[in-house]
Amino acid sequence: MTSGPRLVEVRANVLRRNDVLARSLRERFHRAGVYVISLVSSPGAGKTKLLETTLASLRGRWQVATLVGDLATDNDAVRLERTETPVRQITTGTVCHLEAEMVERALGGWSLDELDCLFIENVGNLVCPSSYDLGEDMRVVLMSVTEGEDKPLKYPTIFNTADAAVLTKMDLAAAVECDLPAAHKHIQLIRPGLRVFEVSAKTGLGMDEWLGFMQSQIGSRAQS
Amino acid sequence: MTSGPRLVEVRANVLRRNDVLARSLRERFHRAGVYVISLVSSPGAGKTKLLETTLASLRGRWQVATLVGDLATDNDAVRLERTETPVRQITTGTVCHLEAEMVERALGGWSLDELDCLFIENVGNLVCPSSYDLGEDMRVVLMSVTEGEDKPLKYPTIFNTADAAVLTKMDLAAAVECDLPAAHKHIQLIRPGLRVFEVSAKTGLGMDEWLGFMQSQIGSRAQS
Repeated sequence: MTSGPRLVEVRANVLRRNDVLARSLRERFHRAGVYVISLVSSPGAGKTKLLETTLASLRGRWQVATLVGDLATDNDAVRLERTETPVRQITTGTVCHLEAEMVERALGGWSLDELDCLFIENVGNLVCPSSYDLGEDMRVVLMSVTEGEDKPLKYPTIFNTADAAVLTKMDLAAAVECDLPAAHKHIQLIRPGLRVFEVSAKTGLGMDEWLGFMQSQIGSRAQS
Repeated sequence: MTSGPRLVEVRANVLRRNDVLARSLRERFHRAGVYVISLVSSPGAGKTKLLETTLASLRGRWQVATLVGDLATDNDAVRLERTETPVRQITTGTVCHLEAEMVERALGGWSLDELDCLFIENVGNLVCPSSYDLGEDMRVVLMSVTEGEDKPLKYPTIFNTADAAVLTKMDLAAAVECDLPAAHKHIQLIRPGLRVFEVSAKTGLGMDEWLGFMQSQIGSRAQS
């Protein structure tokens, strides 16, 4: 069924078209000097919470904006607008991931030259977003300590295609008896050398290191 | 891209074929007197943990078996085998959900007449599994209190197609400041009248009610 040759062929074409569009988006972002970071994770791993704190910290120094994807509701856009940075919600309907075309459409009317950094928060899904390049410079995968240490092994593609990982909700690590060495070991098995941050956006734990990393990434683009 | 007419058409055909096969599976289960329950949720919401306790409780009275889906690893099957009930792992590769064909194939060699109840644990994904009928009698959606109260609004289809819901990890509800009335309200907005259980498989909280429900469902099939 899934492996029916016609579906595989059509899906391959969709991915090819997405890659072509993502490539042109990436060139556009580079020309405009915008550093683009996408966030992927399970539903409820804390993408929006991490972004709230990150946007509030970065906006004094950089021009930042956000696109946020969900099947339904504009809840996340409403939350992020409180940081007084530009936010647009992409509502995908039944589509389980963002695609380059949705990103391109959502950018309409924004002047990229005025931006230093764009965040793209994907639909909560550890599987499907991994196959769709959005033209981002960096893909960050989030994993909550409440989800269990084996998620990198069970969802290898999303960890394998990430450029950094964030272990979120660290304030709950003891309560859920998270085996942190095992979590790190599993990430490194799937993606050796991947940089991993441990944070709690709620308590502030680890946020300095994460925000320092964001600053340096955006800064390197702004200076180039 | 996603809405390209050719992909939509091919996908509709896949869903139609899945529905036909699921219908014949359902008839087969009914004839054999097997009650079939599927579990869907985000990655790490606690499907396997709930199943461990449920299987251990039911196996004294009923013949129960489990199919468990994941992209990679047989971790869950290994965990569930400790309950000394029959378990088979379905490894989907890159496919983000189970399909009726995978279920049919995985049943090969099992005599359904000897079973009273079959559990099917889907791939952790709050989006894609909602579209694929597996021939089950009851679809149960799990939602961990750590995920946030708005998940039913953001992933409406999976809640709308469920026959029961379980709020898991209730032992963490206070620590994560989960607004339980809001969680219930959102579930009822999407699926009015849906029966909702609050459980912690870790502390045992709410498990009696959940297990009683399972017993009564399986019992009603066994007597019919």
